[in-house]
Amino acid sequence: MPVLLAPEQAPTLQELLDSANTIGLDCKPAHIKHEPEPRIQGLGSLLSAGPSEISFLSNPKLQDQLPACQAAAVIMTPQVFESLPADSYSYRVVLCSQPYLMYALLAQWFDRHRIAQLEGGVHSTAVIAPTARIAEGVSIGPHCVVEDGVTIGRGSRLGPGCVVGANSVLGADCLLHARVTLYHHVRVGDRAILHSGCVLGADGFGFAPDPHSQPGAWAKIAQLGGVQIGNDVEIGANTTVDRGALEDTVLADGVKLDNQIMIAHNVRIGEHTAMAACVGVAGSTVIGRRCTIGGAAMLSGHLTLADDVHVSGGTAITSSIAKPGRYTGVYPYAEHVQWQRNAAVVSQLAQLRRRLRALEK
Amino acid sequence: MPVLLAPEQAPTLQELLDSANTIGLDCKPAHIKHEPEPRIQGLGSLLSAGPSEISFLSNPKLQDQLPACQAAAVIMTPQVFESLPADSYSYRVVLCSQPYLMYALLAQWFDRHRIAQLEGGVHSTAVIAPTARIAEGVSIGPHCVVEDGVTIGRGSRLGPGCVVGANSVLGADCLLHARVTLYHHVRVGDRAILHSGCVLGADGFGFAPDPHSQPGAWAKIAQLGGVQIGNDVEIGANTTVDRGALEDTVLADGVKLDNQIMIAHNVRIGEHTAMAACVGVAGSTVIGRRCTIGGAAMLSGHLTLADDVHVSGGTAITSSIAKPGRYTGVYPYAEHVQWQRNAAVVSQLAQLRRRLRALEK
Amino acid sequence: MPVLLAPEQAPTLQELLDSANTIGLDCKPAHIKHEPEPRIQGLGSLLSAGPSEISFLSNPKLQDQLPACQAAAVIMTPQVFESLPADSYSYRVVLCSQPYLMYALLAQWFDRHRIAQLEGGVHSTAVIAPTARIAEGVSIGPHCVVEDGVTIGRGSRLGPGCVVGANSVLGADCLLHARVTLYHHVRVGDRAILHSGCVLGADGFGFAPDPHSQPGAWAKIAQLGGVQIGNDVEIGANTTVDRGALEDTVLADGVKLDNQIMIAHNVRIGEHTAMAACVGVAGSTVIGRRCTIGGAAMLSGHLTLADDVHVSGGTAITSSIAKPGRYTGVYPYAEHVQWQRNAAVVSQLAQLRRRLRALEK
Repeated sequence: MPVLLAPEQAPTLQELLDSANTIGLDCKPAHIKHEPEPRIQGLGSLLSAGPSEISFLSNPKLQDQLPACQAAAVIMTPQVFESLPADSYSYRVVLCSQPYLMYALLAQWFDRHRIAQLEGGVHSTAVIAPTARIAEGVSIGPHCVVEDGVTIGRGSRLGPGCVVGANSVLGADCLLHARVTLYHHVRVGDRAILHSGCVLGADGFGFAPDPHSQPGAWAKIAQLGGVQIGNDVEIGANTTVDRGALEDTVLADGVKLDNQIMIAHNVRIGEHTAMAACVGVAGSTVIGRRCTIGGAAMLSGHLTLADDVHVSGGTAITSSIAKPGRYTGVYPYAEHVQWQRNAAVVSQLAQLRRRLRALEK
Repeated sequence: MPVLLAPEQAPTLQELLDSANTIGLDCKPAHIKHEPEPRIQGLGSLLSAGPSEISFLSNPKLQDQLPACQAAAVIMTPQVFESLPADSYSYRVVLCSQPYLMYALLAQWFDRHRIAQLEGGVHSTAVIAPTARIAEGVSIGPHCVVEDGVTIGRGSRLGPGCVVGANSVLGADCLLHARVTLYHHVRVGDRAILHSGCVLGADGFGFAPDPHSQPGAWAKIAQLGGVQIGNDVEIGANTTVDRGALEDTVLADGVKLDNQIMIAHNVRIGEHTAMAACVGVAGSTVIGRRCTIGGAAMLSGHLTLADDVHVSGGTAITSSIAKPGRYTGVYPYAEHVQWQRNAAVVSQLAQLRRRLRALEK
Repeated sequence: MPVLLAPEQAPTLQELLDSANTIGLDCKPAHIKHEPEPRIQGLGSLLSAGPSEISFLSNPKLQDQLPACQAAAVIMTPQVFESLPADSYSYRVVLCSQPYLMYALLAQWFDRHRIAQLEGGVHSTAVIAPTARIAEGVSIGPHCVVEDGVTIGRGSRLGPGCVVGANSVLGADCLLHARVTLYHHVRVGDRAILHSGCVLGADGFGFAPDPHSQPGAWAKIAQLGGVQIGNDVEIGANTTVDRGALEDTVLADGVKLDNQIMIAHNVRIGEHTAMAACVGVAGSTVIGRRCTIGGAAMLSGHLTLADDVHVSGGTAITSSIAKPGRYTGVYPYAEHVQWQRNAAVVSQLAQLRRRLRALEK
């Protein structure tokens, strides 16, 4: 990774900590060895950070990487610091009870200072309906389309090629990366981060058998509901959240969705629930608060999951879960020939049980 | 959900029924209680519909919600109506032998009347090749690109940012939502609905080992076929349908695909087959008519599935299916510790069977 | 499939072979029957190719289709040719030790000559930052956006609506189909083929628990790494490759990714590894060279896979693999009722083993 900031842009360690402290984390330099104070040009892992970068130790298993660390400074807990032999390190130490959270906040700081921010204002190639209400300080990139009756809150930024459908609402300080699509009547709260290619508000998949036209034919059920997304939600690249059939599809505050996730119509997801990539949630399922859903897990429709349910990656959840805890259902992989041998028995399991019972008698 | 139409736009119940009747459904008001006739501003479920909305009962399990229903009118079968105690309800009753189908048609009616239709004509920012043939009444949104030799049929509508590649053909009355991509030589029938982010005609995944350049290297097999899509097909958001290697990839009339589905090259899907989200179909597989494929099911390549095959969600189909019916293959989920305990035995199943046989002898 | 070239554009068989020979493949006409030499207008399978098309036999199982073949010429190995009864065929024979590779190269030839190439130059509707460095012979389609500090190498072509984020680098002779998105600081080598809707460089999914704001809340870990993609890489439609947290996500030379694949942050993929559609690879996993990953397989995070590992479709890989070979883990499907019966035993397997042990004692 390249150094993030040129030396003349880089803050001193103290300036960086002051900035991070503003958000309420307790952290302080424990130990000042070198003069003059170094400037911090970026962030790195214990093994990769160079002498103008800051690093952190959050996973205790990595403690044996500390002696070799070349960073200008390392964030660690007071407990770790006390266990360090004197003179075993050349970096400065920053004490913090939550090094991983502090890393997150410093990474945000560098990200903000490194990437040229979109300039405010509306690019000349954007097509904005006269009835759209665009607050102050909004920036809208090239080739965006903002349709009738849309509202966009203060400080929101739309990358190139975004489409905001009629009567949709974006809160304040949202960041839409390039090519995000909102259909009509989609409501998004404040501080959303929406990644490229995500689609909010496409039609839910609803059809009624229509034997009047042809045997087997389907009549489309128009999807009259919308999508409601709370504050502080992040939605990954190419993820889709469908609009509801009659009511809205709802993502509560703080929900985090990774890439290529599919949220079907009428689904409701509780506060701070996070889903890894490639998850699918079928229609009308209700997921509690603070759940985590592992990558490529699949949830059937019309289920209810309690708060604090954790689903392992690759697991198919086919019934409701009332009790918090971790749930798994993954076929164990093996070398192909071995798998073949064992899998052949899977379709005889009921028979095997019968034979075992017979023997027991 | 907000009320869909303002009171002055809303039809009376009779006007609404007349409109629905035009398409051939038998339905009639069974019971007129109130005067004057109410105006119907929207559609709702039995529990959510208000006094200016219409609701329906299609699932017999919901019959006990009828007494509390506040709707202006409820669609139900004559059988249900006969079982209602007199004076047990305040709504009007609309008799229909297929309430769910009638709900679908009314929802379509409201959808058409609620969303401002795109105006006809080509937006000034669209880039249309001089050789494209655009029929009357076609509307093409901002920032669309229509390449050489394209044909677009009467009444079709393209949302913002669509790309129609060279020599592709769109039938009449198609609806392309924002940011749909057709590559070159893709043929789509009449009345297609294509959702945002779907991609029709990308290259199928074909490579030949090419030891001439480097060990392990691959030579691309250019994909010379196209994509053929019948009439009345709907394709969900971010779904991909690849072009064929030599022949076309084919979706027959009435096929319905949900979001984030992957249809590989040379696949053929029969009339009225419907697939839920996140399904993957590998190359050259042929699927019959009136099949349903559950969410996240996966079909291997070069298979043949008969008509009327129903695959459960999450199931991997690895061999051809000649007999109609329902097929499933999902690892049952459990609490993690319990799963761990049982999964450990999965890789010993062949051995277990041997031991059981030994005992039986 | 339509004929690919009009007769007046079509090469003679000898001209076509000369063209293919230029890349070093040994191939020669074995047998000239007809005069004058036919013109080859396209490529087809043994059963579909017509008298102005060329076909090939690479799969020995298809040898019994040879007598019925109507093609102008058929590519086959000398071994196959020697086994053909005299007078059993009317086509010309082209001998080649690798018919499938030759088919790939001929298909590329027809593809290049069939599709009108994008004209060089930058379309007037594209928005190009003044600081972008665009080499000679680059073509940039309508509504593209190229941001500050971007470099695009000689001969690269961008279809309509592509977005190349700040400071990204595209090598020479790349082909970006319509609506490809690169975030900032993404580096792509030479001759890449990127399909519509793919997104390179979106944020990896990283959050730190943030109890300071609310119980269960997450603080975003800004993703400071980038994406590095080697030469000769192909990436399918709607596939996503996330940027690294601190280091880069890396795809080595010759990697081939099908559609709708998800590569998470910090993943590293070795040379010439190929993945079929719908695969998910979780964060920080390292995959060796010349691996093949079947459709819808899922790899957990922080794993290492050796070179030459082959994962079957639908398999969840949950631990590292040190030994080359084929690995599988798929629940066998069955008729639903039969599956139900056997699956019920899966959650009793540990108990079954205990009972078996008891009997054995």
